[in-house]
Amino acid sequence: MIVEVVAVGTELLLGQIVNTNAAWIGDRLAASGIDTHYQTVVGDNTGRISLALRSALARSDAVIACGGLGPTHDDLTRDAIAAVMNVPLDRDEEILADIARRFAAMGRRMAPSNARQADVPRGAAVIPQKAGTAPGLICPVGNRVVYAVPGVPSEMREMVERAVVPDLATRASERGEAAVIASRTLRTWGMSESGLADTLGEHIAALDTARAAATGVARGEGRGAAAVPTLAFLASGAEGLKVRITVKARDAATAQSVIAEEEALLREMLGESIFGADGETMEQVVASLLVSRALTLAVAESVTGGLVAARLVDVPGASSWFRGGVVSYASAVKHGILAVPDGPVVTPAAAVAMAQGVRRLLGADCGLGITGVAGPDRQEGQPPGTVHLGIAAPFLPGDGGEALSLRLPGDRAGMRQLTTITALDLLRRKLLRAGPDTP
Amino acid sequence: MIVEVVAVGTELLLGQIVNTNAAWIGDRLAASGIDTHYQTVVGDNTGRISLALRSALARSDAVIACGGLGPTHDDLTRDAIAAVMNVPLDRDEEILADIARRFAAMGRRMAPSNARQADVPRGAAVIPQKAGTAPGLICPVGNRVVYAVPGVPSEMREMVERAVVPDLATRASERGEAAVIASRTLRTWGMSESGLADTLGEHIAALDTARAAATGVARGEGRGAAAVPTLAFLASGAEGLKVRITVKARDAATAQSVIAEEEALLREMLGESIFGADGETMEQVVASLLVSRALTLAVAESVTGGLVAARLVDVPGASSWFRGGVVSYASAVKHGILAVPDGPVVTPAAAVAMAQGVRRLLGADCGLGITGVAGPDRQEGQPPGTVHLGIAAPFLPGDGGEALSLRLPGDRAGMRQLTTITALDLLRRKLLRAGPDTP
Repeated sequence: MIVEVVAVGTELLLGQIVNTNAAWIGDRLAASGIDTHYQTVVGDNTGRISLALRSALARSDAVIACGGLGPTHDDLTRDAIAAVMNVPLDRDEEILADIARRFAAMGRRMAPSNARQADVPRGAAVIPQKAGTAPGLICPVGNRVVYAVPGVPSEMREMVERAVVPDLATRASERGEAAVIASRTLRTWGMSESGLADTLGEHIAALDTARAAATGVARGEGRGAAAVPTLAFLASGAEGLKVRITVKARDAATAQSVIAEEEALLREMLGESIFGADGETMEQVVASLLVSRALTLAVAESVTGGLVAARLVDVPGASSWFRGGVVSYASAVKHGILAVPDGPVVTPAAAVAMAQGVRRLLGADCGLGITGVAGPDRQEGQPPGTVHLGIAAPFLPGDGGEALSLRLPGDRAGMRQLTTITALDLLRRKLLRAGPDTP
Repeated sequence: MIVEVVAVGTELLLGQIVNTNAAWIGDRLAASGIDTHYQTVVGDNTGRISLALRSALARSDAVIACGGLGPTHDDLTRDAIAAVMNVPLDRDEEILADIARRFAAMGRRMAPSNARQADVPRGAAVIPQKAGTAPGLICPVGNRVVYAVPGVPSEMREMVERAVVPDLATRASERGEAAVIASRTLRTWGMSESGLADTLGEHIAALDTARAAATGVARGEGRGAAAVPTLAFLASGAEGLKVRITVKARDAATAQSVIAEEEALLREMLGESIFGADGETMEQVVASLLVSRALTLAVAESVTGGLVAARLVDVPGASSWFRGGVVSYASAVKHGILAVPDGPVVTPAAAVAMAQGVRRLLGADCGLGITGVAGPDRQEGQPPGTVHLGIAAPFLPGDGGEALSLRLPGDRAGMRQLTTITALDLLRRKLLRAGPDTP
């Protein structure tokens, strides 16, 4: 199956919003083993939307049209699809009643324009709405199909997961393409892309050989029976490198067992460089390590200026293990409040002193201290990118502190992001090695 | 002129990176009064890139192709453009020598594959590179044109500003389209889109009338002589609403004076809701107000968990006016370190006490205190979205504190972003009213 995304909205063309919907759908389709060759953005104009849909249908099996399903006169996706299908729009009384009910439930009067959201191109199937008021559509065009989904990201995602991906899977299976495609993403921090490629090189070659052999065998039994995983590396900037395992198999149980086996192998080969899987974030992993060890945390930040604390409080329930932090931007604050000894403050010793100081000040079990130079100027003779991370924890020798010094690339903002995740990763590794019963 | 963007890169189709380049170019073109009807994303495949370029040239006057100019075998934009132009690629010895020099300057050996970056479709003009190694290209195709620029955002932006926009302006002027288009964006916080529309409604209607009249008069003198500004509202989420002034005029001096006059009018009508212009951020404005009043600042954050401090330190030179902050996530930290009186901590009084406490603790002139409920659960009986902001400053009556309480929408992350900018905006308004000589 080849699928493409047509995103509808003049605000996308004008750069007022960034097309994150196309990126999300692209990632979601890739995870299902579905190819995409093109994506298009088109403004709120019926003729141009129709032209974009026709061009897309000429080169792909299916099109996901995203946006333009709202109630205003600028919402023209329904009209454009009807033109491409060469059918009239019929008003669906059931949808209309449903929209009216939603308005009544919110205690609001339904404006007459909302009735347009109940218009359905003749011959299309409706994807009932769960959130919002605009239903989605499944519109056959010859042996191809146009899916219409809302442009609001949360509504789009819910509808793609619930209706579009399953419908695509059914169509793929009817064509004899692999019945089940499953994937799992392992998230790593601390290895370069070439380092990953070196470590996994032989294993990937072995998988390629096995896949070629299995495909040969499978040819007699029909396509898609070769349950050998494929690995892909995905760079995610300051969020690290992802290793995605994808497998096509004849049933879900086989796919899941192949993925589990491959994940175990990769965890053995990559060790603690793997910090999480799928949507898991570094701060969530740190949080669950702290919770499982019944430890609390406080952070003292200079160069990151509050970014580490801000990420930690993004984890729901943070108040049970996060005491808080001190942003010690002025050197006097480091010396006065955190009791960092007089002298230079961009040193490993100062980072450890910050960690010890904030831990004592806020009454936490563990402390994290972060000092460095964001630039553009040198500080204490050290160049931008210099970072010293300090950690203080009961499980370190003598209830003491340790430091890690490094030089990070990037501009002011980029270097801060890298420092933030590196600091969280340091804490994660120390907690992992400390084991669950250490304090 | 109608221009469209073709972004090249399989990583865009797979959603590994989001197409922020297309959004940036769309915004930049709109600011120059240039229309865009479509944007396309295409993977690293010569045939498909050529097809995308041909489709784009069939419906637009110019195409900006972004990405695929690197040295690897996946970088195919040059090849695709040569195919569309129906010309061979010539290796440019001057570019080759320049690339070799750049490698030598970094003390690195140039890999042979880098020579591909010196290939130029016959008949194309070169846009010399400033950063990076890939030069850009201006490729005539009949009476239309394809610009090729790198995919690295900073390199792309620099080249579009330096070479693409001026070249488009020259072409527009040769066609008799407006010679000069200038724009300025005023950034507002605190007004809704409908509030802006109400306040400016009569003025916008008057501009429309004046433009219609001027266009009628100008018709005798050639197109584009009507120097009446156009206003557009751009929603930017947690960064507020922008009001963009665009003017087409026969020369730059006229355009600038029309914009200055319109800006003065809008500033009169919108007052302190306008916090800045063009790229100016809320934190930069707060910083310059503090500097001009010779005041220092400290922040105490609960619900925002460090986001306010992190934005403040993004301003270069923050160390001269920002003392630091306390992230008082645990209530005990609020009572213990910041001396917030015992009792509930999600109250206006607690917010002011936090501001007073952090100001005293870190030795700053002004303090900002932020408490609230991020959710998903209620806290102290108050629903998610509840926010209390406290400010303590020498220019407030009796050297005292003031609070602002509000209820903000959004999920955990969205509500935090809104709280952050609202807190900075509160400080900005108080500093503005205090005048430059108050402390």
